[in-house]
Amino acid sequence: MRKEFRDLAPPEAAHEAIASLDLAAGTEEIPLRDARGRVLAERVDAALDVPGFDRATVDGYAVRARDTFGADEADPAVLDLAGVVHAGTEPDVVVGEGECAEISTGAVLPEGANAVVMVERTSERDGAIEIRTGVAPGDRVMFAGADVAAGERALGPGTRLTPREIGLLSALGVEEVPVRATPTVGIVSTGDELVRPGEPLSSAAGEIYDVNSYTIATGVEEAGGEAVLYPHAGDDYDQMERLLVRAAEECDLVLSSGSTSASAVDVIYRVVEEQGELLLHGVAVKPGKPMLVGRLERSAYVGLPGYPVSALTIFSTFVAPAIRRAAGVPEPAAATVEGRMATRERYAEGRLRLMPVGLVESGPTRSVRDGDDGDDGADGAGETLVYPVDKGSGATTSLVEADGIVEMHPDTGYLDAGERVEVRLFSPDVRTPALFAVGEDDPALSRMLDRVDRPRFIAFGSREGLRRLRNGVPDVAVTTTGGAPGFETVELGSWTREWGLVVPAGNPDGVTDLADLVDRDLRFVNRTSASGLRTSLTAALADLAEERGASRHDLVDGIDGFEAGVRAHESPARKVLAGDADVGLGLRATAARLDVDFVPVGTETVRAFSTPDRAEKPAVRALAAAIDDGDAFDDLPGYEG
Amino acid sequence: MRKEFRDLAPPEAAHEAIASLDLAAGTEEIPLRDARGRVLAERVDAALDVPGFDRATVDGYAVRARDTFGADEADPAVLDLAGVVHAGTEPDVVVGEGECAEISTGAVLPEGANAVVMVERTSERDGAIEIRTGVAPGDRVMFAGADVAAGERALGPGTRLTPREIGLLSALGVEEVPVRATPTVGIVSTGDELVRPGEPLSSAAGEIYDVNSYTIATGVEEAGGEAVLYPHAGDDYDQMERLLVRAAEECDLVLSSGSTSASAVDVIYRVVEEQGELLLHGVAVKPGKPMLVGRLERSAYVGLPGYPVSALTIFSTFVAPAIRRAAGVPEPAAATVEGRMATRERYAEGRLRLMPVGLVESGPTRSVRDGDDGDDGADGAGETLVYPVDKGSGATTSLVEADGIVEMHPDTGYLDAGERVEVRLFSPDVRTPALFAVGEDDPALSRMLDRVDRPRFIAFGSREGLRRLRNGVPDVAVTTTGGAPGFETVELGSWTREWGLVVPAGNPDGVTDLADLVDRDLRFVNRTSASGLRTSLTAALADLAEERGASRHDLVDGIDGFEAGVRAHESPARKVLAGDADVGLGLRATAARLDVDFVPVGTETVRAFSTPDRAEKPAVRALAAAIDDGDAFDDLPGYEG
Repeated sequence: MRKEFRDLAPPEAAHEAIASLDLAAGTEEIPLRDARGRVLAERVDAALDVPGFDRATVDGYAVRARDTFGADEADPAVLDLAGVVHAGTEPDVVVGEGECAEISTGAVLPEGANAVVMVERTSERDGAIEIRTGVAPGDRVMFAGADVAAGERALGPGTRLTPREIGLLSALGVEEVPVRATPTVGIVSTGDELVRPGEPLSSAAGEIYDVNSYTIATGVEEAGGEAVLYPHAGDDYDQMERLLVRAAEECDLVLSSGSTSASAVDVIYRVVEEQGELLLHGVAVKPGKPMLVGRLERSAYVGLPGYPVSALTIFSTFVAPAIRRAAGVPEPAAATVEGRMATRERYAEGRLRLMPVGLVESGPTRSVRDGDDGDDGADGAGETLVYPVDKGSGATTSLVEADGIVEMHPDTGYLDAGERVEVRLFSPDVRTPALFAVGEDDPALSRMLDRVDRPRFIAFGSREGLRRLRNGVPDVAVTTTGGAPGFETVELGSWTREWGLVVPAGNPDGVTDLADLVDRDLRFVNRTSASGLRTSLTAALADLAEERGASRHDLVDGIDGFEAGVRAHESPARKVLAGDADVGLGLRATAARLDVDFVPVGTETVRAFSTPDRAEKPAVRALAAAIDDGDAFDDLPGYEG
Repeated sequence: MRKEFRDLAPPEAAHEAIASLDLAAGTEEIPLRDARGRVLAERVDAALDVPGFDRATVDGYAVRARDTFGADEADPAVLDLAGVVHAGTEPDVVVGEGECAEISTGAVLPEGANAVVMVERTSERDGAIEIRTGVAPGDRVMFAGADVAAGERALGPGTRLTPREIGLLSALGVEEVPVRATPTVGIVSTGDELVRPGEPLSSAAGEIYDVNSYTIATGVEEAGGEAVLYPHAGDDYDQMERLLVRAAEECDLVLSSGSTSASAVDVIYRVVEEQGELLLHGVAVKPGKPMLVGRLERSAYVGLPGYPVSALTIFSTFVAPAIRRAAGVPEPAAATVEGRMATRERYAEGRLRLMPVGLVESGPTRSVRDGDDGDDGADGAGETLVYPVDKGSGATTSLVEADGIVEMHPDTGYLDAGERVEVRLFSPDVRTPALFAVGEDDPALSRMLDRVDRPRFIAFGSREGLRRLRNGVPDVAVTTTGGAPGFETVELGSWTREWGLVVPAGNPDGVTDLADLVDRDLRFVNRTSASGLRTSLTAALADLAEERGASRHDLVDGIDGFEAGVRAHESPARKVLAGDADVGLGLRATAARLDVDFVPVGTETVRAFSTPDRAEKPAVRALAAAIDDGDAFDDLPGYEG
């Protein structure tokens, strides 16, 4: 039976259901040395005075203040030296009238003395000490308990332990601190097709690497929990039950995640209903509708959606706050940023949308209409622009192409370009990319990006890259379409690359030119139509057709595999390498890298364009410098700067 | 010989000297699972396609698209079921013309099929499948490499690994990632008087707990380094040399810290000069003048000042950025906050001042003059006010009474009240306290503060507390001085506490009232004059003097220990408990807590006041609620709400 989710709960009900599970993991005593980032479970009062004794605050001489009254440079008091007190030793001297004792910073003020004269205001003469200033009782002395006194409140419950709190607790001699225990979170990934990273993978058997286990485990740790990974389970009821029950016995919270298959969800659903209690199934959010909340034995349970971006989105929206509450850790200050929508975004689906968005900094010049306050961009750093990441949620790459989430409420309708939005980042360590480039995939470009701080590049292809640049979202478009785009741009630089036909090592079919591709029965792998390489190929075929007085269409029809196309620049060559094709469209540099043969057809120019409002961004200038510098072309056959 | 520091280097020279030491720790390969927060050392390109096969994106039926052309609800296509393909298995079916195969989300598209119809648009009838919609080739299929293609740039060097990057690397099956190695930082604390927290302490021998080692170690870890603690060293040259050389051999950077004694600094200075190279001694900053930068064997070396706040300040200003650079970790986004000066602060010492400051939130109503933009406080949350923490840098409590550092440049002269400043927090986890209360130390108050989120309380005493409240910095003053203050306040609530004379258990001297204190030869411990308790005592003595027709002065003169005074409310009772005094000024509650006897003298009222602009802050209201609620008085003898 395939279960359909009906009666979707409102998102607030999901928050409440998770809160009702009460993850609080209790208290534990841990060594102070390991307490960084932890949260005090109870108040710590000082158990001792700091300092524990009257203490000299300078190097100098311990004196009876009365003996120095009236002393000055012209008329020093002369005192007999009764002894020496070092820091960390018990004084073996008593300072009598007319006497003094040499004393180090931090040393115990000896009996009889009630003040210290700093060494700079003293001189030794004939074994006696000249004191060239008068001091009052208590001068240059820190009295016992003056810093912290026994019985005083030192730190309250809920205090996050940063270096300074660790310092205060050190001063109090605390060895072990009572902290909120770390909630343990078990992660059970489901799906027969999942393989843990590092293990061998069979694509023929439909296996894929398990993305959610490590992603969510890392998110759990970031939220202050301890993640426990369990082996993944298939759709078998008994196996799933054993795993979930074991995780529930060992952890405060169990998360299941991984499979998108309805049958696995069905199995989990049954296990939770039979071994615990299901509080909620299905939430009115996009993505993440099929979310489960319940109880398994004495543990809390949340079922996350299977797609990676959906899983991380639902985790960070609903689960991470509960883990932080249990750990006593506040939401990180850097967890959200404010920005303005770079484009208008419509929405009308009647449920909360957790919209994955990317961030980009505007140039020092505004690219979005001015708002009503003068704060942003005042320092010339630009403001944060926010754009929806429109890939399907099944794409793993959305994980790194989006920076966070904007919540669009069901009644929003649309967000206007320029409208202020708050973005909840996928991690407080996420930063706005310093460069957002789009366009043609290119190995030299990839090397150039290594020289730019925090770049983002998305290989949309040449034409789509230019279209997006015109729409004002990215900083840079990289294109092979030739010539200047039909809107105002700044050319950052260009280079050329040799393209042609990639064939197996040794060129077993003896391919010599494009005519062989048209005239012979060869299995060909093309690029997708977004690719500038395909445009170059099509143009070359048009030339050949003209030469022959034929139509391009007829020529193309004769090529087995021309219409389909693979997305990335190495993919055709890899198909050739794997023996799945006889000829692939590609670059000389790729053929060299993969050790296959290459039949040259032409050379195309790759150009990088920015727009006037972005061209002065430091990262854009860094890319221009990397193009100009030409290091990226070293050992890259067929490239010229 | 005591060395004086001359020719102070400018702070920029200190930054440069540390940068010239080049801490970079190299590269290491670590398991992906442990890579959270680490920084990629090199680019990671995809080594495989994701997915590795053409994959169904829904549960449904794999079909040849052509077989569904023209199908709709009214006129479904009817296909024979050729088999089933589960996720994670190799298809054992080929879809021929007029056939379909049941397929799960994520399963391999079987040979022959080129599209998937979602299950919701199908029905089973008599063993055959009705397809109620037409699909195009590629519908509901994610092609191999569509997400990530082998050879594509996945993540660049310098990328911080947060959950989403861990997710992408999981998808690529990466087992070990090349990351920037963690710089190891050895910490050698110096000073014979230091004892590590948790070990027994002899105050008589002038021992104190080592504050800097754990504080700085925690700071090192926060900056992305690994801290290694070494035993602390005294002033002995050979011992110091052995320790420093060992640390230099084992670590990328050695920090010395701890002792404030000039002789220990001299010894270190000599070791560095003889075993390495001293690049810089003495920097024109306050605090932290006696800073050393150099090289010890092949390790970098920085000598930090001894006082905890100075050590943390110099560490966070000069050393932490170098550790972050070496680890490849950016400065945390939450490491600085903007605020306005709450008071005017003068400075004219000709060197950079790293001024420790506290933070407090203004109320929704502005308490500082309006600035030139309308951004702050627009949401009613108030703005961040910044005030100097004026304790001596020797005080450990400054660590938690200050939140960060404002840099005042040598030519600043003054910072005006209301002026915008940037505060570098002592840790990105430091938050602005939600409540800043000052005034009279009180055990019931301490319990009430436990019920307020992020409170700060400083026991300045009653009168000083009121004075500071009037000056507009704290939110609340707690006072026993009686009646309303002479400025506009909001009373949050009040309670009473019984005070009197604390005597040893069993009251061996048979003290019965205040007259005994005046008339008999008893060693007395008073509170400091800032304390409201002392004010109550003085008033009671005045009453007694009047009764007797004597002057208060005469009565006071007869009390051994009246003039001196200890700072904290439990301190006199603790002196009595320790046998150092016969009578102490204190509370009934304190006597009960410490199991000593109590002779009642009077009852005083403790009042909490806020100001109109702060009274509505949530934390101020929480304190008022805690006073009103009265739980804090449970089991606290002598208290009444």
